[in-house]
Amino acid sequence: MDDAPEQEPDEPARTERAGLSRRGLLLSAAAAGGLLVGGVGGGAAGYALGSAAETDTDAIDLSVTHDFYGSAEQAGIRTPVQRYSVFMTFDFTGTTASDLQMLLARWSAGIAQVMAGKTVGQVEPDRDSAIGGDTGEALDLGPAALTVTVGLGPGLFTDSLGLASRKPTLLRELQLSTATLQAEFTGGDLSVQACSDDPQVAYHAVRALARMGKDAGTAATRWTVMGFGRAAAGTGQSTPRNLMGFKDGTRNVFTDADYDSFVRVTDGPDWTREGTYQTVRKIQMDIENWDTDRVSDQNQVFGRYKVSGAPLTGTDEFDTPDFAATDDTGAPVIPARSHVRLAASENNGGLKILRRPYNYTDGINQYGLLDGGLLFVSYQNDPAAFETLQSRLDASDRLNEYITHVGSGVFFVPGAPASGSYLAAGLFA
Amino acid sequence: MDDAPEQEPDEPARTERAGLSRRGLLLSAAAAGGLLVGGVGGGAAGYALGSAAETDTDAIDLSVTHDFYGSAEQAGIRTPVQRYSVFMTFDFTGTTASDLQMLLARWSAGIAQVMAGKTVGQVEPDRDSAIGGDTGEALDLGPAALTVTVGLGPGLFTDSLGLASRKPTLLRELQLSTATLQAEFTGGDLSVQACSDDPQVAYHAVRALARMGKDAGTAATRWTVMGFGRAAAGTGQSTPRNLMGFKDGTRNVFTDADYDSFVRVTDGPDWTREGTYQTVRKIQMDIENWDTDRVSDQNQVFGRYKVSGAPLTGTDEFDTPDFAATDDTGAPVIPARSHVRLAASENNGGLKILRRPYNYTDGINQYGLLDGGLLFVSYQNDPAAFETLQSRLDASDRLNEYITHVGSGVFFVPGAPASGSYLAAGLFA
Repeated sequence: MDDAPEQEPDEPARTERAGLSRRGLLLSAAAAGGLLVGGVGGGAAGYALGSAAETDTDAIDLSVTHDFYGSAEQAGIRTPVQRYSVFMTFDFTGTTASDLQMLLARWSAGIAQVMAGKTVGQVEPDRDSAIGGDTGEALDLGPAALTVTVGLGPGLFTDSLGLASRKPTLLRELQLSTATLQAEFTGGDLSVQACSDDPQVAYHAVRALARMGKDAGTAATRWTVMGFGRAAAGTGQSTPRNLMGFKDGTRNVFTDADYDSFVRVTDGPDWTREGTYQTVRKIQMDIENWDTDRVSDQNQVFGRYKVSGAPLTGTDEFDTPDFAATDDTGAPVIPARSHVRLAASENNGGLKILRRPYNYTDGINQYGLLDGGLLFVSYQNDPAAFETLQSRLDASDRLNEYITHVGSGVFFVPGAPASGSYLAAGLFA
Repeated sequence: MDDAPEQEPDEPARTERAGLSRRGLLLSAAAAGGLLVGGVGGGAAGYALGSAAETDTDAIDLSVTHDFYGSAEQAGIRTPVQRYSVFMTFDFTGTTASDLQMLLARWSAGIAQVMAGKTVGQVEPDRDSAIGGDTGEALDLGPAALTVTVGLGPGLFTDSLGLASRKPTLLRELQLSTATLQAEFTGGDLSVQACSDDPQVAYHAVRALARMGKDAGTAATRWTVMGFGRAAAGTGQSTPRNLMGFKDGTRNVFTDADYDSFVRVTDGPDWTREGTYQTVRKIQMDIENWDTDRVSDQNQVFGRYKVSGAPLTGTDEFDTPDFAATDDTGAPVIPARSHVRLAASENNGGLKILRRPYNYTDGINQYGLLDGGLLFVSYQNDPAAFETLQSRLDASDRLNEYITHVGSGVFFVPGAPASGSYLAAGLFA
């Protein structure tokens, strides 16, 4: 029977491959601001420098910190991808631009604290009559590579707030089908992406901001997804697997030049310089149905081999796909409707987007089926770049048989604040 | 303002306290079968042997394995507590005892594979027409200290299955109020508790068993909770914090003698020897309401100080609470209705239960409030032990203002199988 336990014949024993050396890790921390950045795959490039021969442990350093202030872009975009994320959007419930300004100033001060591994206030206040300034659940857990990245939705740039004229040039609702979207996972005036190597640290950060917004009466929670995903260690770059069992992010490698070409905003209102656009999709995977498809077909759907991650025209994960290759019958080896062919940069006029996805699970749905998928987050200097790629996938991707986009959002992510300033300060100048 | 960022004055910088040394970790692996076992707190005792002076990293070793076969009790009960868990219950959908026997035999073989860091079948089968024997998402992630612990619910021991006479002596539905329980988080004929230092490894394990049960038509998913919780490192034992910000599990330390007295089943039908009873509660915390309570009152609710975890009669987390101490007015320093007083072993005739809880979050509820809490799991040689303690808490615990038990389950957990055998084999003898 197919589900009988047996050893995978073409897989080395996994204990021999689970190596991510401490040395690799320290190199990684040093390389955090370096050349290779990217989504899960690209971030992993910064991490997985160990090899199986060197080590048999996979260690993470929970004392790593990232800076909130002073960079060009906010942390959490090019930062090596952490293992966990909590993504949440909020409705703005204030009434004036000043309310928004105050919220962003408070959030900025709070984010600077938590990214440094500190609390946002006293856990046990000196006064008996005081409530806690910090909820305390992340005490002693360290910064754990926390980044908190804030985005501003299209709904903020209205006449009633006096911000219509200050709108980031390319910010507007996504021009994609909304047929499968569910209101409870869609939209928002503000987005918060907290990523960390400890989920409790990420959760604490988002909870702290939610609490500030509620106390001020200016931000109300809208929807959230908690994500996970670890890059396995090995030789060279290592790429995490999605819940379909395929490696996700193999070609998501960005250079500094790529970042400048495809991600960094360089024109529009002054205050938007060094910003970028964040697009978000909650993609539900019908994993139980997927699991009944034969793997040879799954490989055709992705255009890659499941175990190795190699393109169907290659043998190694990082072999460049040969989209021109045909088989004996003249059919393309990498099928016309395969995911890798439709999404590939070279088949989209060289277009690239910086992806930062995480796996999620929502448990069991109303039909008793395992409910999980991918929280897809990408960064680009124009939401149209994501729309171009996604429209192509929407029209043809064979993967569509197994996935449903149930949530969506688009946000402008302003640059990092200067030290002592706050997010989007220039918007209010 | 209370939520303004400020440094916690009585807390050392957290980067100095985040130490869990590699040396401590190796000691811990060696001590896994040793004297100190327990719930989150007790398990942490096995881990946190490093001190801040020695190290500034908090490392986990993802190559750690635990044995499925050959111990007295199943792994995942006394095992040092891992960081993540996926708990799932199933309805038995077979019609004969033989169906159940086959399911448990298949699950056992599968569990042995995944606990060794292997797949449960081929990810890419040799035959083009074959579906995958393993879903693949945990390939290369290592065993990550995975344990999978299986329980049998009261509904299995019926006349129709011919198993009524074989029922574990003390197994029956919990005798507690069901007023707040929700059907979608309650009950089940089988429980699976997968714990690991990687959530994707734990998820893969449960998914593999769910798939086997579905394919055989003998087990259907019922409810699930994904849990997390990391013990911060420090000097001596370290205790994780719940989402109320309090340390949870300080006194949950078990010796081998405690295990024999309070957890191990030693009488009843032969096949139940070395087993134990698992009780489960999904406890929703009204954390946003909790966050508005002044911390001096929160300390009274727990009977402990929030930051240090010390009892109100002491200064150190591990000081023994002095329940006799009174203040100037003659009132007890540790209040009559405080959680620690009601739950303490010395106030319950010496009773102890082995707790293994995890934090969880379900995102945002229908009121826009953060929805999270604790998946409480305990092990004891009689479900009445849990009922005794829980009834007392139900009646008086001041914490009840902030928590709601929304889910519940009770299961008999048979001992570990002998090598080459399977779970509960003796039930069918």
